[in-house]
Amino acid sequence: MSLEAVMYAVNVRREGNTLVTLDQTLLPNVTEYLNLTTAEEMWEAIYSLRVRGAPAIGIFAGYAMAILAKQIPAPDFDTFYQDCTRLSDYLNSSRPTAVNLSCMLRRMDAVVQANKDKAHEELLAALDVEAKAIHDEDIAMCRKISEYGLSLLKDGDGVITHCNAGPIATSRYGTAQGPFYLSKEAGMNIHVYVDETRPLLQGARLTSYELTKAGVPCTLICDNMASLVMKQGKVQAVFFGCDRIARNGDVANKIGSSGLAIIANHYGIPVYSLGPSTTIDFNCPTGEQIPIEERPHSEIKELFYEKPMALPEVQCYNPAFDVTDHSLLAGIVTEQGIAYPPFSESFAKLFPEEMKNV
Amino acid sequence: MSLEAVMYAVNVRREGNTLVTLDQTLLPNVTEYLNLTTAEEMWEAIYSLRVRGAPAIGIFAGYAMAILAKQIPAPDFDTFYQDCTRLSDYLNSSRPTAVNLSCMLRRMDAVVQANKDKAHEELLAALDVEAKAIHDEDIAMCRKISEYGLSLLKDGDGVITHCNAGPIATSRYGTAQGPFYLSKEAGMNIHVYVDETRPLLQGARLTSYELTKAGVPCTLICDNMASLVMKQGKVQAVFFGCDRIARNGDVANKIGSSGLAIIANHYGIPVYSLGPSTTIDFNCPTGEQIPIEERPHSEIKELFYEKPMALPEVQCYNPAFDVTDHSLLAGIVTEQGIAYPPFSESFAKLFPEEMKNV
Repeated sequence: MSLEAVMYAVNVRREGNTLVTLDQTLLPNVTEYLNLTTAEEMWEAIYSLRVRGAPAIGIFAGYAMAILAKQIPAPDFDTFYQDCTRLSDYLNSSRPTAVNLSCMLRRMDAVVQANKDKAHEELLAALDVEAKAIHDEDIAMCRKISEYGLSLLKDGDGVITHCNAGPIATSRYGTAQGPFYLSKEAGMNIHVYVDETRPLLQGARLTSYELTKAGVPCTLICDNMASLVMKQGKVQAVFFGCDRIARNGDVANKIGSSGLAIIANHYGIPVYSLGPSTTIDFNCPTGEQIPIEERPHSEIKELFYEKPMALPEVQCYNPAFDVTDHSLLAGIVTEQGIAYPPFSESFAKLFPEEMKNV
Repeated sequence: MSLEAVMYAVNVRREGNTLVTLDQTLLPNVTEYLNLTTAEEMWEAIYSLRVRGAPAIGIFAGYAMAILAKQIPAPDFDTFYQDCTRLSDYLNSSRPTAVNLSCMLRRMDAVVQANKDKAHEELLAALDVEAKAIHDEDIAMCRKISEYGLSLLKDGDGVITHCNAGPIATSRYGTAQGPFYLSKEAGMNIHVYVDETRPLLQGARLTSYELTKAGVPCTLICDNMASLVMKQGKVQAVFFGCDRIARNGDVANKIGSSGLAIIANHYGIPVYSLGPSTTIDFNCPTGEQIPIEERPHSEIKELFYEKPMALPEVQCYNPAFDVTDHSLLAGIVTEQGIAYPPFSESFAKLFPEEMKNV
């Protein structure tokens, strides 16, 4: 598969009135695309994590509503709108905590309401346009982040990355892994060291899959091998994503990010967090205020294994995230530009409105 | 099972003319002891890693020869010695690279030769004594290391440990994990955070097994969670083993040890390496001279899993060890005492003969 083909293929796309999505639950062993046309199929795809990653789910939801709206009988607007709302609520129930899902469904709902007095065909066309806009905006945003990220690398560099924030979870380029695809398009030689990312193995299952399919040179390692790889001089930068960024630049990301950042700093290697500016929580003063989700012990002891790897009575601690202190970061890369330390100053320049209101 | 019972049970012991060993290949799901009486059974137990860990294999080999010698017809010494040598060579062929195995077989051979003029019953009795001596010496050595290690902890401390150097791999207490069992015997409250230790999961499969069976409070974590656990103030020390120590105090140990040490230093937490003084290679000036073994990619992508976790074409890097720089260590704990930095000075005090000859 060509790089171009991979970039377009490995997440969500619309083909006429069919929603096509890669079944992520089968990765990395089977690459299978689902052709979805009914609300039930779409609900199930989100619910069963066949499509996952906040941006990917948002794009999926936009296309889903545009396609499903065409199937609703519309004797009058009120009848149509009632059915539309019912479908939207139904899709939203597939993953109640996914903020991006409800956010994009609301955006589609606003388009329906804004076009209530238009001809029905016009309303449907407006939904098509909005769904495509959601997708295009995400591509453009990922592209900007990737360009800023790539500007931090030079030909021949090695980069360690952690977890997955690539095409599968977003659109086209991805965020933290986006610069690697752009480097390939630009004909640069960037080698990516992919942390397998225990316990859910997003690095092994998703990131190494995406990079390999796209022909980006990469090497999969266990999380605990980063120190040796850095010591050997193979790595010139660390790139990872972000789940939430505090006003002072503290970054919550997948568990293991903070340790990776500490080790990189020890070896004098710069660490960058990449993500959309919507990830910055301007109301959150520091990382101390970010709650850390704890997940089931079974993810450590049993998931993916043929047999359990520890006794049933063994206690585990399974935090899903950690916070990387802003002092460990060389920069935070957003679609608006790169924020450098001190972050409170660079955030004030990049996001004057948002920083003014806090 | 009581602590005492665990300490005696979980590795190798002799019961009359039967060699009893825990089948480590079935851990942690099945606890099964093997009763071995023939050379073939004993060979297979080493070959198939049912017994593993250098000290445990050494103890196993001593008892094996003492037991097997009794089965050899001895019309005269030469006939007996020929058969004895054949058996010893045969056992030695089970793991050709295990230094401790051949070392202990040579020690048993020396006893045979030293007693060639004695009555045959006396010779057999001398082998029994030597086999027990090998075991007792290992127990005593582990006990000393454990005592020195425990002296570094205070009641209520949390400790992170990596990989396995406990009773399963040694005798009774173990080395890096020995202080935890002693703390339990002493009625102290020490909580152990156990790195699962990718990719072979010795922490999950062996260390958390041993500690839990012995009733030592412990929590299993993924390797990449150490930073968060340390940041939360749960950890006052890091204890890990050693595979080879250079003259300057650089320590080669299981992959992940150096990253753990860097993170601990970042948080101001002292790091100790524990092991027998035989691990110090006085002819090796620094860690730079220690070769790093690379192991198969399948250990990262496939081992233990129901299905592969990465595409067949994904490249991996799988180093088995890394070197922790001496500057990251607060001390090196041996049966002769604790060496503190600067290690060249403390080694000269603890091991004057060995340091003189380099």
